[in-house]
Amino acid sequence: MKHKFEAWDGFKTGTWEKEISIRSFIKHNYTPYDGDESFLETPTQDTLDLWEKVTELSKLERQAGGVLDMDTKVISTITSHGPGYLDKEKEKIVGFQTDKPFKRALMPYGGIRMAEKACKDNGYEIDPDVKEFFSTHRKTHNAGVFDVYTPEMRACRSSHIITGLPDAYGRGRIIGDYRRVALYGVDMLIADKEAQKETTRSAMYSHVIRDREELTEQIRALSQLKEMALSYGFDISKPAKNTQEAIQWLYFGYLAAVKEQNGAAMSLGRTSTFLDIYAKRDLENNVFTEKEIQELVDHFIMKLRLIKFARTPEYNSLFSGDPQWVTESIGGIAIDGRHMVTKMSYRYLHTLTNLGPAPEPNLTVLWSTNLPLNFKRYCAKVSIETSSVQYENDDIMRHTHGDDYAIACCVSSMRLGKEMQFFGARANLAKCLLYAINGGIDEISGKQIGPQYRPITSEYLDYDEVMQRYDDMMQWLAEVYVNTLNIIHYMHDKYCYEKIQMALHDKSVTRWFATGIAGLSVVADSLSAIKYAKVKVIRNEDGLAVDYQVEGDFPKYGNDDDRVDSIAYDIVHRFMEHIRKNHTYRESIPTTSILTITSNVVYGKNTGATPDGRKKGEAFAPGANPMHKRDTSGAVASLASVSKLPFRDAQDGISNTFSIIPGALGKDDLVFAGDIEVDLDCDNGACSSPTLFEGLDTDEK
Amino acid sequence: MKHKFEAWDGFKTGTWEKEISIRSFIKHNYTPYDGDESFLETPTQDTLDLWEKVTELSKLERQAGGVLDMDTKVISTITSHGPGYLDKEKEKIVGFQTDKPFKRALMPYGGIRMAEKACKDNGYEIDPDVKEFFSTHRKTHNAGVFDVYTPEMRACRSSHIITGLPDAYGRGRIIGDYRRVALYGVDMLIADKEAQKETTRSAMYSHVIRDREELTEQIRALSQLKEMALSYGFDISKPAKNTQEAIQWLYFGYLAAVKEQNGAAMSLGRTSTFLDIYAKRDLENNVFTEKEIQELVDHFIMKLRLIKFARTPEYNSLFSGDPQWVTESIGGIAIDGRHMVTKMSYRYLHTLTNLGPAPEPNLTVLWSTNLPLNFKRYCAKVSIETSSVQYENDDIMRHTHGDDYAIACCVSSMRLGKEMQFFGARANLAKCLLYAINGGIDEISGKQIGPQYRPITSEYLDYDEVMQRYDDMMQWLAEVYVNTLNIIHYMHDKYCYEKIQMALHDKSVTRWFATGIAGLSVVADSLSAIKYAKVKVIRNEDGLAVDYQVEGDFPKYGNDDDRVDSIAYDIVHRFMEHIRKNHTYRESIPTTSILTITSNVVYGKNTGATPDGRKKGEAFAPGANPMHKRDTSGAVASLASVSKLPFRDAQDGISNTFSIIPGALGKDDLVFAGDIEVDLDCDNGACSSPTLFEGLDTDEK
Repeated sequence: MKHKFEAWDGFKTGTWEKEISIRSFIKHNYTPYDGDESFLETPTQDTLDLWEKVTELSKLERQAGGVLDMDTKVISTITSHGPGYLDKEKEKIVGFQTDKPFKRALMPYGGIRMAEKACKDNGYEIDPDVKEFFSTHRKTHNAGVFDVYTPEMRACRSSHIITGLPDAYGRGRIIGDYRRVALYGVDMLIADKEAQKETTRSAMYSHVIRDREELTEQIRALSQLKEMALSYGFDISKPAKNTQEAIQWLYFGYLAAVKEQNGAAMSLGRTSTFLDIYAKRDLENNVFTEKEIQELVDHFIMKLRLIKFARTPEYNSLFSGDPQWVTESIGGIAIDGRHMVTKMSYRYLHTLTNLGPAPEPNLTVLWSTNLPLNFKRYCAKVSIETSSVQYENDDIMRHTHGDDYAIACCVSSMRLGKEMQFFGARANLAKCLLYAINGGIDEISGKQIGPQYRPITSEYLDYDEVMQRYDDMMQWLAEVYVNTLNIIHYMHDKYCYEKIQMALHDKSVTRWFATGIAGLSVVADSLSAIKYAKVKVIRNEDGLAVDYQVEGDFPKYGNDDDRVDSIAYDIVHRFMEHIRKNHTYRESIPTTSILTITSNVVYGKNTGATPDGRKKGEAFAPGANPMHKRDTSGAVASLASVSKLPFRDAQDGISNTFSIIPGALGKDDLVFAGDIEVDLDCDNGACSSPTLFEGLDTDEK
Repeated sequence: MKHKFEAWDGFKTGTWEKEISIRSFIKHNYTPYDGDESFLETPTQDTLDLWEKVTELSKLERQAGGVLDMDTKVISTITSHGPGYLDKEKEKIVGFQTDKPFKRALMPYGGIRMAEKACKDNGYEIDPDVKEFFSTHRKTHNAGVFDVYTPEMRACRSSHIITGLPDAYGRGRIIGDYRRVALYGVDMLIADKEAQKETTRSAMYSHVIRDREELTEQIRALSQLKEMALSYGFDISKPAKNTQEAIQWLYFGYLAAVKEQNGAAMSLGRTSTFLDIYAKRDLENNVFTEKEIQELVDHFIMKLRLIKFARTPEYNSLFSGDPQWVTESIGGIAIDGRHMVTKMSYRYLHTLTNLGPAPEPNLTVLWSTNLPLNFKRYCAKVSIETSSVQYENDDIMRHTHGDDYAIACCVSSMRLGKEMQFFGARANLAKCLLYAINGGIDEISGKQIGPQYRPITSEYLDYDEVMQRYDDMMQWLAEVYVNTLNIIHYMHDKYCYEKIQMALHDKSVTRWFATGIAGLSVVADSLSAIKYAKVKVIRNEDGLAVDYQVEGDFPKYGNDDDRVDSIAYDIVHRFMEHIRKNHTYRESIPTTSILTITSNVVYGKNTGATPDGRKKGEAFAPGANPMHKRDTSGAVASLASVSKLPFRDAQDGISNTFSIIPGALGKDDLVFAGDIEVDLDCDNGACSSPTLFEGLDTDEK
């Protein structure tokens, strides 16, 4: 059968030809690989030369204090910069965010003060005209949000009961389906968007007007994407013809996104199985050798490692590095039962060997017990050697998300091109418990932040009384929290809309309204202590409960003990039910996550002593982890407690930071198993959660 | 009783002290004046000197081709310019839109291309950075609208069946209640807005978020208003203490509006009775003499005459001048029965004598049969001497609008500070009739513009068949028209929001969704010809009806003949009912107007021959007027036909251009009477309708 494009010759037909559907293309064309890693190739000399250049520039960047060069006048757009190269002769995959590597772009749409501070703190001065323009004539996301916040929201933010809100940084967590650029070429994507726009010629309600304007912006962004690629000498209006073009087209799509947005997590998607189809065809047709294909992948991954944003030093020190969460999802199982591991899955992981370990891109294996044994072994091997692989539980997520989802950031799963997330940081449920006890007064500042509900005045805490107050306070918190996020996402859409990323989505997009929970194990243990031991309240001269004495022992979360695990379950479920009571922006579907990984330290620092015996300022456990040293019944019991949490109430992800000494992974026939998502090796920083700037609030007005 | 402010001493108490209510203040404090004009004073030497300067500068401006100076880089905001003076020593009322008189401001929020063209056509070049910013980073109202228009809307626009849309110029027709600045001072207005904002701390639905953001913008604009006044040396945070301050404070409010917006009509409101309260107090307390008060008024009116905008030469030639429609409403009757004529009403009109005749500000008398005879006589006298007074029928409008409404532009009435209008230009109902006959094909271009309804194919037109088709076509037109306006006003709010004008409104504002009708008498006569005579269709080689032969006589609109007047009534009612079927933006209330005054010529030019015997390209009658020379039964019969039109279906105004030779007004005991709004002396250009740029479409993309 003759295809519409010559570039598609050799591909099996499917609905993907008639409509934009990468999943259909993959399903009909990919070849699962059960073999081992022996086919993999070492890096070419060009790759080594280029990587050496990168290493040198990285050294210079560190010497320069973290930043080598910054734009202070040219505002970043898809087409704002001419082409930039590391070494034009040697690069097989090209494209930088600005006109040269290591030069950070100026992105003020999110907030002019943050952009200014990022420059200033790195020794650069933003152009005064740019500052004036974005202060007076061109409002930013940040400015819009603070114009609308209520005093209550500001208070909740300052007292850290709601924390890490994406109101001074880009929300991220949107993955454009960059594969579409390669398979279809931009002209067909534009035609598709024009057809989508035609479907909105109805009564002009405001939401229809918004949709039509957004579609026009998307079409404009696609044209700019073509223009940008053309400046590098590539006409991407038509489909990619081989592996090199497929990677290049796909990368241009991603590059346009990171030229336009400085999001908290700019993830890549699930590209390896898709690209393997091109590689297999090219190998069969002798277009490229395996060595050449690995070189293309190495150069592609090298480019992803060089994605950089202008950020503040506080940001970098908080996250020990300069993270972008360029997450790529590898592997998983198709819903027809075939595993989705291909040779390209190996090639991606192999870059950690060819180029050396690195936290970016965040290579994430969608783990299933049904992955082929050879691949499992190889993953283990690479993990041991590089400490740079993240694992997520495909067996759970596949049920709700199918087989063409990817991970944004650390754990947020979304169907590619069909779903996006309104990222919402976290509510501090441990502090909320203290508010319930103190009638809405913050235990640290002594200020009335929450509603003036009746405080608890008894010497010893009564479980039923506390639970009733706590439930009321959670309901209040959920309401303020959701309304705060409604404002943030309304303004992000208004002032910092992700044009190119949304252009690489379907018209009808499911929007996840992602809330988050912090301090879960503190709350579970505190309530357990109140219920099963005796907790005496220590009050200060103002009658404010500031400390607690626990008399007797109590069951602790993390020991597979239903008495307390059921409390953790209940809290997650209750809070999520309170969240669901509220209107959420743009028909988004509320979810929650339990996933702090490094910021739990900061949350703990800003939270007073809790009834579980935890002292004021002490760190929370990360994510859904049991509190440090309290899971005394062994690893399996600890994991079992976590696994009881209701995934349907925390569908945006549950993280459990689980450290194993490397030697434990060294056995030959090791097979991973488990019902929970496990983030291994979090020390590399790649799977930290993007609670940027919390506690900094530098852009607050 | 002690007032809150010393500035209020001597004023009678009322609810106006407890809440923002100018109407309450006026009601309790104004003094109707029944005397004649003998108290009026001649201009002071300073006034004469200043006016001479203005005259000189006007001459220079004309010599320079229409524009003396333009900003090409500084973007106009409330605070963008330092103070400007004509002659600082002599001016009693100060303030210019830019830093000097006759220098036109740069206002690109509405559309960068129009701003650029206005500069270019006058020999100026817009700053390239400004152009780049507003093309790339800061979207404009015009750009937003054209991003969303459907192909059908563009076609309707190009073929002039919908015409004069405010998509390439500011919608105007919003009157800030500038009196509030004088009576309350800005601080109290800010406090009021803060309190309003407090009432929106509910669930954050998108419309609530929008309201909160707008309120914040309003508060910001009020702060800027204070800042701007301070640059002239006035602290307007507190209430005005005397007549001079009251006029100055009020004018600063208006000045802020014209620094921010280049609207199609920037009307002033209804200020004279309000200011008379201050003048009366000052005269009684010997603060000012009558001569001094007249001087203040003369200087104030002089400032209003110098309001200028950067516009294109096409605009100016279309409107024979440089109109701003600074309409001020004078007189009228209070709902308690007292007339509202004060000495200040005389003083305002007297500026036409002291400074000489001028079309701006558009001094409009709210006429009632119950106005005092002395004032009626004086109006007649000033009209005869200056040809510069507009009259509107208060006896009709008072019933629906009360006694604190004013006229925006020519005839659009709105309660001050409580209502605003979404201006919507006009639908060409005569062309719509031709579309009904030709099945949606434009009779001039031959293009399919409307829906492909069945055309009429008979040789002679059948009334019932035509009416049925016409009704369908009007329904289609109403739908496209309303949806087009929905887009325009959504985008105007989004990209060119009238911050300071809306800051001088209540929180809950009634929004009129103003549509308009053109070609009414053509339609009425055409349908009458079809019904009562025989109309033969002349078709071209493509079968398109392009001309009509009328055989026999038929009743013509304008002769008090119910056979045709009822058709006119019916058409207005039907069209309005079709309009009402559609969703209108922001819970606005649909109205229509029948009020073209000069643009009827352009509409006729773009409309083919009609079944009433009117030839292709011939002008329509203005507004609701009978067609030229067809009202053969005398003036009273002509007026009677117009007066039968349903005001409840055309609440935005019905205009009838009625020329009388000046001598006819010269009788001593002349009393105006009539049930319709009569625009006298339209030759001065002041009461032209603001259908700016129609047929120009210079900013279309």
